[in-house]
Amino acid sequence: MTVREPLTYRDAGVDLEAAAVTKRRLRELVESTRTEAVQSGFGSFGGRLAVGGEEIVTSADGVGTKLEVAIRSGRHDTVGEDLVNHCVNDILAEGATPLAFLDYFACGELDPDVAVEVVRGVARGCRSNGCALLGGETAEMPGFYSPGAYDLAGFILGRMAFREVAARDLRAGDSLLGLESSGIHTNGFSFVRQVLFERLGLEAADPWPGLGVPVADVLLRVHRSYLEVLRRACEQGRIRALAHVTGGGIPGNLGRILPAEIDAIVDIESWAPPPEFRFLAEQSGAPPEEMYRVFNMGIGMIAVVSPEDLDAVEAAIRESGCGTVRCGRLVEGSGRVRMPGADAVP
Amino acid sequence: MTVREPLTYRDAGVDLEAAAVTKRRLRELVESTRTEAVQSGFGSFGGRLAVGGEEIVTSADGVGTKLEVAIRSGRHDTVGEDLVNHCVNDILAEGATPLAFLDYFACGELDPDVAVEVVRGVARGCRSNGCALLGGETAEMPGFYSPGAYDLAGFILGRMAFREVAARDLRAGDSLLGLESSGIHTNGFSFVRQVLFERLGLEAADPWPGLGVPVADVLLRVHRSYLEVLRRACEQGRIRALAHVTGGGIPGNLGRILPAEIDAIVDIESWAPPPEFRFLAEQSGAPPEEMYRVFNMGIGMIAVVSPEDLDAVEAAIRESGCGTVRCGRLVEGSGRVRMPGADAVP
Repeated sequence: MTVREPLTYRDAGVDLEAAAVTKRRLRELVESTRTEAVQSGFGSFGGRLAVGGEEIVTSADGVGTKLEVAIRSGRHDTVGEDLVNHCVNDILAEGATPLAFLDYFACGELDPDVAVEVVRGVARGCRSNGCALLGGETAEMPGFYSPGAYDLAGFILGRMAFREVAARDLRAGDSLLGLESSGIHTNGFSFVRQVLFERLGLEAADPWPGLGVPVADVLLRVHRSYLEVLRRACEQGRIRALAHVTGGGIPGNLGRILPAEIDAIVDIESWAPPPEFRFLAEQSGAPPEEMYRVFNMGIGMIAVVSPEDLDAVEAAIRESGCGTVRCGRLVEGSGRVRMPGADAVP
Repeated sequence: MTVREPLTYRDAGVDLEAAAVTKRRLRELVESTRTEAVQSGFGSFGGRLAVGGEEIVTSADGVGTKLEVAIRSGRHDTVGEDLVNHCVNDILAEGATPLAFLDYFACGELDPDVAVEVVRGVARGCRSNGCALLGGETAEMPGFYSPGAYDLAGFILGRMAFREVAARDLRAGDSLLGLESSGIHTNGFSFVRQVLFERLGLEAADPWPGLGVPVADVLLRVHRSYLEVLRRACEQGRIRALAHVTGGGIPGNLGRILPAEIDAIVDIESWAPPPEFRFLAEQSGAPPEEMYRVFNMGIGMIAVVSPEDLDAVEAAIRESGCGTVRCGRLVEGSGRVRMPGADAVP
């Protein structure tokens, strides 16, 4: 493979088709376990469960191959924070605030120093989101993991706090407000490492070409938590829905919250993707539709807001220190995300 | 290494000392995240959380290297059930009945057939315990896992149902009632595979020597759920505490529930370990104190029962189809588990 041949996610070892096939086949199994307490459908950002008079919201996630950057750079104390923030954002998109987190750390040979650093990041993420680290499991599994590799997954438990967000009362004419990401967050890393480590032969400590900052610093920037950023607007009932932009990008995740009779039109000209995404696009040769499906491209969360609330919501978010971009709107349609210039099917 | 040199868990690649060191160092991190809602201490079978008027109990676990047996035999639909039952038993030991489960499946290359079989087992386990499969994550992580290997972890969420079990009001004179396991359950498999696959060169399809049943059939017997077995006695308030016998064996897990002023005396002569454990002891040359720390040795759960309730509890459990053994008692002491004939420190 020459350097300039366009890279796809599949070349990087991630088969989205296999993932989609698996997901379709899992649906029936999941539904076979449904109980009366379940309040959510298959494929939501978080599962919702009625317990007594409460509604509990949960989600499970992994860090994925961002862990390779931690392992290559020997900096293990940030990926746990990524994971917690990722989970916090997922349940926030279901209207919930976090209560507790449990982690699962697995490796081939247990190095206590590494395990403790990893959990240090988990604990920091928990503290900053007001969430208790309630349990966890540390597993040593000789022969299962490549030497030095480990895996980290987590489970979050929250409580329904923002009914309007959960209700997703979306209407044609609503505005899409993009919240800036802190960087690549926690998805697309199989693609990243293929470009940076394999094709370009960079090391974690090398400067990112054109940025003058070590590759590891750019890649390990912590996945942003949008909990405090969005809290006020959520409390005021001004957020109609949230889409957490993770694997699948804007089209994949915005599509999860659209009703069947509404389309979203995302104007990709309304913001400039940060330089790390532009560099990855150039070096990989991946077309825009691939880039916008693999990466957040600078927008880590999208809020759906009624036009009359847009100024107030934008001001509240910016006051909390997070940049925003008015990146699109909802129109009548058929549940599709349309991104002129980056549509997978033009 | 010759076949008759005694095998230790450490030889099998599992460093219990590293695990203990890690656990001690994690304690402070975990406690730094504590919130007012947390009801449990570090190192319990499950984390307890007050949510509104409810008490939620959670636990995280993995299948561990039992997965290797599934992978070697190409039989992927039972390990998920092991995992659910394991988690169900953990929160039962905290007094809770299950509500929901979330799974995390990770691999190097996603084979939808394998992933679906794995989740089929998870879903079966959920249905049989009345628990909803509320979410999950499927991760493809090229380069992290050995070829063909995958990992499976799970998170359970339950609701406090049996306050007496949670209260652990243990007294000198109480009886220990052992509940039979279905086999090796879900721990000690790094030891198992070292003996069977490495030392003896057996294959998953070979007959287990002396049993005439394929090795895989013996090893993949599903971890028993004690939920229905114990429900009636728990509802009647006749169970003072439960210890789920997993990694660490009887001494490790019974020790977790003892108050500081009580010892447990376990009479290992009161039951005969099933043949698979005797075979593993013979072939590994491991001394009893090692065997009883690595394996459940035929007892998967221990109930603490007051002597006057013992007949009724035993009858209820046996009626539900689970064998029992009166395996010991509590005496005044210092929080130690004493197992004459199998004590680590005689």
